[in-house]
Amino acid sequence: MTHRWLVCLAYFALTFPFLTGATLVAQDILSPEVHPDRSVTFRLMAPAAQKVEVRLEDASGEKPLAMTKDDNGLWSLTTQALTPDIYSYTLAVDGGVIIDPNVHEFVPNHFGQGGVFTIPGSPAEAWEETEVPHGEVHHHYYKSKIVGDQRDFFVYTPPGFEAKGKTKYPVLYLLHGYSDFANAWTVMGHANFILDNLIAQGKAKPMIVVMPLGYGAPKLLEHGWKNLGHDELWQTNIEKFSDVLLTEVMPQVEQEYPVKKDRESRAIAGLSMGGAETLYAGLNHIDQFAWMAPLSSAIFDEPAKTFPSLDAKQAEKIKLLWIAVGKEDGLLKPNREFKAWLTSKNIKFTDIETDGAHTWPVWRRNLVAFASLLFR
Amino acid sequence: MTHRWLVCLAYFALTFPFLTGATLVAQDILSPEVHPDRSVTFRLMAPAAQKVEVRLEDASGEKPLAMTKDDNGLWSLTTQALTPDIYSYTLAVDGGVIIDPNVHEFVPNHFGQGGVFTIPGSPAEAWEETEVPHGEVHHHYYKSKIVGDQRDFFVYTPPGFEAKGKTKYPVLYLLHGYSDFANAWTVMGHANFILDNLIAQGKAKPMIVVMPLGYGAPKLLEHGWKNLGHDELWQTNIEKFSDVLLTEVMPQVEQEYPVKKDRESRAIAGLSMGGAETLYAGLNHIDQFAWMAPLSSAIFDEPAKTFPSLDAKQAEKIKLLWIAVGKEDGLLKPNREFKAWLTSKNIKFTDIETDGAHTWPVWRRNLVAFASLLFR
Repeated sequence: MTHRWLVCLAYFALTFPFLTGATLVAQDILSPEVHPDRSVTFRLMAPAAQKVEVRLEDASGEKPLAMTKDDNGLWSLTTQALTPDIYSYTLAVDGGVIIDPNVHEFVPNHFGQGGVFTIPGSPAEAWEETEVPHGEVHHHYYKSKIVGDQRDFFVYTPPGFEAKGKTKYPVLYLLHGYSDFANAWTVMGHANFILDNLIAQGKAKPMIVVMPLGYGAPKLLEHGWKNLGHDELWQTNIEKFSDVLLTEVMPQVEQEYPVKKDRESRAIAGLSMGGAETLYAGLNHIDQFAWMAPLSSAIFDEPAKTFPSLDAKQAEKIKLLWIAVGKEDGLLKPNREFKAWLTSKNIKFTDIETDGAHTWPVWRRNLVAFASLLFR
Repeated sequence: MTHRWLVCLAYFALTFPFLTGATLVAQDILSPEVHPDRSVTFRLMAPAAQKVEVRLEDASGEKPLAMTKDDNGLWSLTTQALTPDIYSYTLAVDGGVIIDPNVHEFVPNHFGQGGVFTIPGSPAEAWEETEVPHGEVHHHYYKSKIVGDQRDFFVYTPPGFEAKGKTKYPVLYLLHGYSDFANAWTVMGHANFILDNLIAQGKAKPMIVVMPLGYGAPKLLEHGWKNLGHDELWQTNIEKFSDVLLTEVMPQVEQEYPVKKDRESRAIAGLSMGGAETLYAGLNHIDQFAWMAPLSSAIFDEPAKTFPSLDAKQAEKIKLLWIAVGKEDGLLKPNREFKAWLTSKNIKFTDIETDGAHTWPVWRRNLVAFASLLFR
């Protein structure tokens, strides 16, 4: 959404009499309020509460910040100036975690909901909606024969795109993580605005970006996080997703959009579970993808088992294998082990270890960095 | 989103060690849980709370439903069997209104946030995602020269749509209400699934549906609900939106999509503020729109002032003027007064008074009803 009304609404919705039935949250409280100096004030009316914290997620992870209560029972906290970024947060009220009832943007996620706000940069950061020409985001729905469900995928087309035009575009397949919905890379990743900005600055080639629902075995979501990655279903999920991508999503995209179909015009990238899927689909189909960017990849299996036929000769055909992980990410170790295995096989890759943990600030910056390398 | 995982996740996210930084809401609680008998169980862990209510919005408006606490501090409530529909709700904890921290779908709104769940029908209701061919929803971003902001609009194209094809489609411009974002008619209204289903059943003509951001003077959002409609800004907002629609949105749509451009292939409809906009843009531009469906319209001004040149002779060109309002809607009276004014001017219209209040269940059913009448 393009509007953030940072306005103290001094009245309750119920004063407007025709709304007899609307579901309404108290509107006399402005929270979060982003200030010009890049600090933020959070507020919550909770007279009976004993302890209220903001749990703010930045690049390094979640930080608890204590709020204080005034005589009216209004809890508040103003942060220091924050780094320009898109932040998510929850409120812990006497230990119970809630979404700020006054926030207007939400994390879309099966398990990790929360509120969202933006600290704008000056000049604007690469993920902000700026006054450059904008591409379009297409939302597709279809029935998967492989999985048997109704599912969706999103397609970004760059500014000036014409379905009827003669220009054919390269394609980046961009995969979300476990617990995400298909809209994660647009809503949290701002992938469309990142591409708009990079293309406007001449830093990325105009490309189509396809963001499919990333579950091959959606039953995996019944696991929650417990022991995730440590049973057969994890690998089944990745393998079936690879089939969905190659035999359901790619044919639809290549039929409906003017895309180049050679391997050097196809990239695959993804975060966490989507990083594991990037490696599985990419390294087992070097004939299909020349560009690969696995990010914060959830690597749980023996690479020799997952990539049985991969060798240095095959890997020479890869134009980019950009392996990124944050130095504060719990998946740093398996990523380093995987990179050591690649090195032992004489397979070249670009080794990116950044600041940050397993968080969206890291992945947005990853996309800004690798998108400009693709299709060169 | 296509997945609703009605599964009790018995573990906390923090047991998955690499997620050192994720913003996470407690995941041992399933709420809301929709049962096969169409009842729903709501749950909230709040040991310190004295009183917790579900505020459930159905067609008639918001109902408070008392929850009860068990020995562990878990509040719960199981409803009776509910009418198949899409419901929104909040939780009131000792009077403070919050969004259920465990819900996975949200009302997108500036002021009226809440959780969302669906009671499916058998057979499926007209607004459900079924196994029929699906159209596509396109998200466009642009800078409005009239308003001076970055804004967006959504475009539904029907199944089988080909941007390159020879088929030209009629267009419905479909407007949201005050406090909504541009995605209200897709997220809350399921307009795309309603059209998919009606088209599959041969009940509606294949059409393109355009859903623009509906503020001509976004400053109006600073009002909240207090005295809304009772100053100049209300009318300025409607007039400027009409300019945005006619001179910015329509030209973009007619350039990018294969649409018919005659008045008999153009419809306009909208709810609440969007109903007032429908009347203003429609009745003042009968040369542009032959089909009009103002729903639960927020009519605040003297019609003689708003529609100075409207008369019975002009109005003969209107193919459909479908004026709908719920009998429990606070706007019933101004709608009846407006209809009496039309009658006094010998202007014909279709008079629809349904059950229900100022709510989405009413508007979804409105869309199902009038979409099948358009372009016949």
